[in-house]
Amino acid sequence: MAGGSHRMSAGFAEDLFDRLRAEGFDGVGITRECYSASETRALEIVESEARRLGLHTERDAGANVWATLPGTEPSLPVIACGSHLDSVPQGGNFDGAAGVVAGLAAVAQLRSEGFRSRRSLRVLGLRGEESAFFGQAYLGSSALFGQLTAQDLTAANVNSGRPLADCMRDAGVAVDRVARSEALLDPASIACWLELHIEQGPVLIARQQPAAVVTGIRGNIRHRAVSCIGSAGHSGAVPRWLRQDAVFAVSELITRLDRHWRTLLERGRDLVVTCGMVGTDPHEHALARIPGKMTFSLDIRSQSRDTLEGFYDLFRSECAGLTDERGVTFDFGRRLETAPAQMDPEMTERLRASLRAAGQADEPIPSGAGHDAAVFANAGVPTGMIFVRNANGSHNPREAMEMSDFHVGVDVLTRTLRDLAA
Amino acid sequence: MAGGSHRMSAGFAEDLFDRLRAEGFDGVGITRECYSASETRALEIVESEARRLGLHTERDAGANVWATLPGTEPSLPVIACGSHLDSVPQGGNFDGAAGVVAGLAAVAQLRSEGFRSRRSLRVLGLRGEESAFFGQAYLGSSALFGQLTAQDLTAANVNSGRPLADCMRDAGVAVDRVARSEALLDPASIACWLELHIEQGPVLIARQQPAAVVTGIRGNIRHRAVSCIGSAGHSGAVPRWLRQDAVFAVSELITRLDRHWRTLLERGRDLVVTCGMVGTDPHEHALARIPGKMTFSLDIRSQSRDTLEGFYDLFRSECAGLTDERGVTFDFGRRLETAPAQMDPEMTERLRASLRAAGQADEPIPSGAGHDAAVFANAGVPTGMIFVRNANGSHNPREAMEMSDFHVGVDVLTRTLRDLAA
Repeated sequence: MAGGSHRMSAGFAEDLFDRLRAEGFDGVGITRECYSASETRALEIVESEARRLGLHTERDAGANVWATLPGTEPSLPVIACGSHLDSVPQGGNFDGAAGVVAGLAAVAQLRSEGFRSRRSLRVLGLRGEESAFFGQAYLGSSALFGQLTAQDLTAANVNSGRPLADCMRDAGVAVDRVARSEALLDPASIACWLELHIEQGPVLIARQQPAAVVTGIRGNIRHRAVSCIGSAGHSGAVPRWLRQDAVFAVSELITRLDRHWRTLLERGRDLVVTCGMVGTDPHEHALARIPGKMTFSLDIRSQSRDTLEGFYDLFRSECAGLTDERGVTFDFGRRLETAPAQMDPEMTERLRASLRAAGQADEPIPSGAGHDAAVFANAGVPTGMIFVRNANGSHNPREAMEMSDFHVGVDVLTRTLRDLAA
Repeated sequence: MAGGSHRMSAGFAEDLFDRLRAEGFDGVGITRECYSASETRALEIVESEARRLGLHTERDAGANVWATLPGTEPSLPVIACGSHLDSVPQGGNFDGAAGVVAGLAAVAQLRSEGFRSRRSLRVLGLRGEESAFFGQAYLGSSALFGQLTAQDLTAANVNSGRPLADCMRDAGVAVDRVARSEALLDPASIACWLELHIEQGPVLIARQQPAAVVTGIRGNIRHRAVSCIGSAGHSGAVPRWLRQDAVFAVSELITRLDRHWRTLLERGRDLVVTCGMVGTDPHEHALARIPGKMTFSLDIRSQSRDTLEGFYDLFRSECAGLTDERGVTFDFGRRLETAPAQMDPEMTERLRASLRAAGQADEPIPSGAGHDAAVFANAGVPTGMIFVRNANGSHNPREAMEMSDFHVGVDVLTRTLRDLAA
């Protein structure tokens, strides 16, 4: 640990984002591929900056970076914050990294104030949150809590085809322990986890609020490709009563799901529904051919497991109804799911109080996208999240967080850490 | 013209279909490409058979084949029947050829009976009805009535890229006259046109009737690719009230069109509606991405121009409504259309009387598919059509007409020719 009386410079966060951007720029956007040299380079930048700020740094058995302001009783469970440092290909600079930079800024601010606490304050820069390279999200946090399997480690990199195990080993991960599903971090050693992240949707822009506290992280039930099978025929020659038109059937299905969705929202349920990939088969469809088959994907998300399962039952029930009414059948394929995660009520209340104390409107929102915070919460760590306003969504180079909004988020995080550590 | 007292053999039609099948078989189905050697070979088979039956044969300036039983007053407008001899690639043996074989069978039957009429009876074997090779249907009949243009003749063959003009010239067509839109046949020289064709839909199968008289040929209004443009976004992070989801918008549009369709059918209108090609963009869609764009085709068909235009107005009006309600926009591209054709009431009544006289149920149906008969009708020739029951649709090798049903059709045609020529 470096000694001395380093103080934060005013432009610390801006400078660190600039360094990360300069290293991660791929010609179009930012690429920090998980368990690759580009991700490791981001960890090194964070480490060097943390040391310059007077924090102690180390890597854990998952090859993630920790920056620590030690407490007076270092054996106590620590107060932890941070996020992930990897990105999607051609993504933005803030999805993930903003939470790590914010953690450093907050802890460094407390250090510069001479703040001392019983519990250590630790900033975690995680690897491997994005699913883009190995098809599975939260690799870094899941590995920490012993939630990966030897099977997971066989996943091939989408570009190189190399197994995840090899890439993790190169990055310094204790792969044998991960393969045994051994926890690399005891959840009980973490008193709480706070994660700041850019909002990946447009809600805060619409509400004109710079930041908001997250109530929970939506889980999902998904089908990648449901096939609706009807019967093809000449578009002019088959009357309505003899048709088994897959496109009309799926259109009615989606329209009915939309009605159910609206009704559930009116009843106060948390729910989003998306059919992102739909289509007839380009190899056999034609302008004058009744479509005999249409495929569609389904992504249902909610903070509530009951709402997810309830809506899924409605979906299957509507498919059964359309089978009767329109003479089509459905082939569902594999059902995929991720559990929702609730944020800790005490953490949420503390974050909301800090937001109000920072002079901001306090209107919490759910997180529709998944985050490492869900893994921490489901591992039993009291967890809270802050979203910072961001334009143009995420997972693209046009991601756009204003630094003034970021500083509101850092202020909320700093106040909450001070409050928790007091 | 051959003399003598040739009589029809019982298996005449079966033998002729066999010869056509043997020549046209491509390994999968039947291919008689318009204005190619395979189509010409079918004409030659028909010619040789017609001469064997004692009929006079000749080619017209459109390179189509005519087989004639001369009347006592050959200068009178003739009674004509027939259909086309070309097929789609990997199609069936009956789509088109059945009408030519039926015409030969009927006229030869009358000749064998010693039937003599004032008007000549003529069987026409047309070329170029299918749109599969040059993108335009009814080339042979349109050329006869001077309805093609020099522009049409520049169309490239989908396989070879050769212009239609070259292929027509090779087949013996007077291309210069066609290019000048000069009529090769005076509509006034044709007293009436009767066309037997397999049904390309499943209605007669469902009704358990071997044949039916056609009331009219549906016209259509089409769009090959309408784009609905919304706004892409993260499927978890954008709530319903901020979405501009192209798939939900198009699904609701198609569902509304289906409701209007059902209502119009209940009011007795003739209408079929098909969206045969729909889909999100495979290059940018994803399971967890709100679809920002979806394209769909539209094929509206009716015997009534008013119904076509009325339904089209409903379509555009629903699109405008969805633009307001869902924040999406529509890019329609080019509107294509083909006029409906009404069958001649007298011809239809004569054919129906023949059908009843043949001991069959008489329940007329519209033709959803287009036919050369539409070109004859719209050129002012009194026109009638007979459909013969056929399983598995058309434009595929599984096309399946029973010969017993075909003979019912031939009987109806023979009775009607006898009646007309009496």
